[in-house]
Amino acid sequence: MEKIYIEADQFFVIHRRPLVMDRQEIRRLLMERYRRIKDPEMRSVLRVQDEILSALRDFLRRNGFVEILAPIIGPVTDPGIRGAKQVSVDFYGHGFKIMSSMILYKQMAVSSLERVFALSPNVRLEPSESIETGRHLSEFRQLDLEVANASYFDIMDIGERMVIYTCRRIREACRDELLLLERDLKVPSVPFRKMTHEEAVELLRSEGYKVNKGDEIPWVAEEAISRMFDEPFWIYDYPMTARGFYDREDPKRSGILMDFDLIYPEGFGEAISGGEREFQLERVMARMRSNGEDPEAYGWYLEMLGEGVSPSAGFGIGVERFTRYVCGLEKIWEAVPFPKVPGIVSP
Amino acid sequence: MEKIYIEADQFFVIHRRPLVMDRQEIRRLLMERYRRIKDPEMRSVLRVQDEILSALRDFLRRNGFVEILAPIIGPVTDPGIRGAKQVSVDFYGHGFKIMSSMILYKQMAVSSLERVFALSPNVRLEPSESIETGRHLSEFRQLDLEVANASYFDIMDIGERMVIYTCRRIREACRDELLLLERDLKVPSVPFRKMTHEEAVELLRSEGYKVNKGDEIPWVAEEAISRMFDEPFWIYDYPMTARGFYDREDPKRSGILMDFDLIYPEGFGEAISGGEREFQLERVMARMRSNGEDPEAYGWYLEMLGEGVSPSAGFGIGVERFTRYVCGLEKIWEAVPFPKVPGIVSP
Repeated sequence: MEKIYIEADQFFVIHRRPLVMDRQEIRRLLMERYRRIKDPEMRSVLRVQDEILSALRDFLRRNGFVEILAPIIGPVTDPGIRGAKQVSVDFYGHGFKIMSSMILYKQMAVSSLERVFALSPNVRLEPSESIETGRHLSEFRQLDLEVANASYFDIMDIGERMVIYTCRRIREACRDELLLLERDLKVPSVPFRKMTHEEAVELLRSEGYKVNKGDEIPWVAEEAISRMFDEPFWIYDYPMTARGFYDREDPKRSGILMDFDLIYPEGFGEAISGGEREFQLERVMARMRSNGEDPEAYGWYLEMLGEGVSPSAGFGIGVERFTRYVCGLEKIWEAVPFPKVPGIVSP
Repeated sequence: MEKIYIEADQFFVIHRRPLVMDRQEIRRLLMERYRRIKDPEMRSVLRVQDEILSALRDFLRRNGFVEILAPIIGPVTDPGIRGAKQVSVDFYGHGFKIMSSMILYKQMAVSSLERVFALSPNVRLEPSESIETGRHLSEFRQLDLEVANASYFDIMDIGERMVIYTCRRIREACRDELLLLERDLKVPSVPFRKMTHEEAVELLRSEGYKVNKGDEIPWVAEEAISRMFDEPFWIYDYPMTARGFYDREDPKRSGILMDFDLIYPEGFGEAISGGEREFQLERVMARMRSNGEDPEAYGWYLEMLGEGVSPSAGFGIGVERFTRYVCGLEKIWEAVPFPKVPGIVSP
């Protein structure tokens, strides 16, 4: 037993004692997953993850959400993935992609059922150097939800209550696991702090970070702002240039999207990303063109918008990142049983 | 409203009134999914599916199972997929596959946690003509479970109780939906009928079907035997030539696998497939060679077996097929919000 525990201790790099690893070391660790998965810490993480999944679903079902089966592959998928590459597959001679997110399908579902969610499998080939952020995987799962006729503030409210409900349940149901992981998980207080993208950029610039008002917040700055707070907080009203064609531009404030990210505290970075959706065909077409997307590729989606879909809002919460935060893990690959890490071949 | 209902009625081909469709018609229907998904029947199916997922997970968690996150892609995957093709992807210059099943990963997980399950996303490119069976999709999800140190009869017992628990809950929670779908779902009685593969082959031959003792039961015969009964039943002890290298050969009965399928009644066909696993390196290597598999491709898996894994047994139950049975649907693509059908391009 003692021997196993020492190995685990070297592997499990809890955030209080960080450890720099090179790629070869990471590869070796991931190839030997069949050993590491038996460590007490990994077993604790997996038990916490099971409780997270259960808590998220219980919360959503109690709030009237219906679970649907997420697509795995399809003719098009979410292009708004911050520099990561989509994965192509041959589907009976036709070019398909593995879902980078099921956003387009959620707009279909929400025209049928008012509140839907899914455990959605996503693959995004992040640049190999993103391994250094400690929070990027090449395959991951989002708990993806969408609500018809909701505003983005309605959805932020659901997100807050969901995160609080889940943290509370983990503290109760996983005492032993949190103790073993030496994680003092706090239940965040409501309401969460809210700042606009503009305010976030100003705060970062005042601390010396190079961030532009019209841009997505870079990973390093995202981690930095995450370290400035000890409770989760919202950043909302992103600039239009930063995001995908499906994020709705405020009809009253040109160039401002009605969307948001939830940021974990303590340097854990992005938790949730979501917003209201563009749902009018003409507006979507215009956004596609200005983003350099080819509308031709989105045949079924545009046909659907032409017939009319419900206006909606929603978000995705990364299951592995939530697990990482709840368990207080340094590296995202500790938060999943079979991790795929950018650029590294492993089971 | 009336108009929508008539369209739905043409689309939803409940098993009591079958309807033959050609490929163009199917393609048109699937391309217009954004319309069909709003039909009262489709909404009912999706609500039943939500309840099925919830019931399956509740049953498993109450029985000590831990939910894990299934892999999406990996360097190798299950080769035992009855003539379907695996899907290749480029993972940073390395040849990966989309999971055809997570069987190899379950053996890893079960050495850490004694009872595990996952909602596992699978892609299998079935031959285009399998569209005619009405029960093949190109992408689907299995509720996949595995138990350390269990016999195949232990696992069949879990499967029976799980199916009964779920059917009972659907009857209670989804009365309105079953009524709208005109489905009189019966809760099966225990124990389920059990027959060996040999007995099943004899029964089919006595009815004039061409089935060989050493072979997998072909789709047409599987549907035929399914129609002979009005409750689910087990077929077990398959011949070794029919299945993958991971299905355990009975040490006392050469050529017989300790595995099983659950077959739905009324022509709905296969429900569950599972068994005990080979877990000894030498035996697996020998089975790979006799199946024409290249052991080189299975590097991490063989390394893991070399270090030793827990003996285990488990199964996968197809979520869409279970939904099809519970709702009494003629075609499998009615049992999933975003169906991918063999050879047909659709969202």
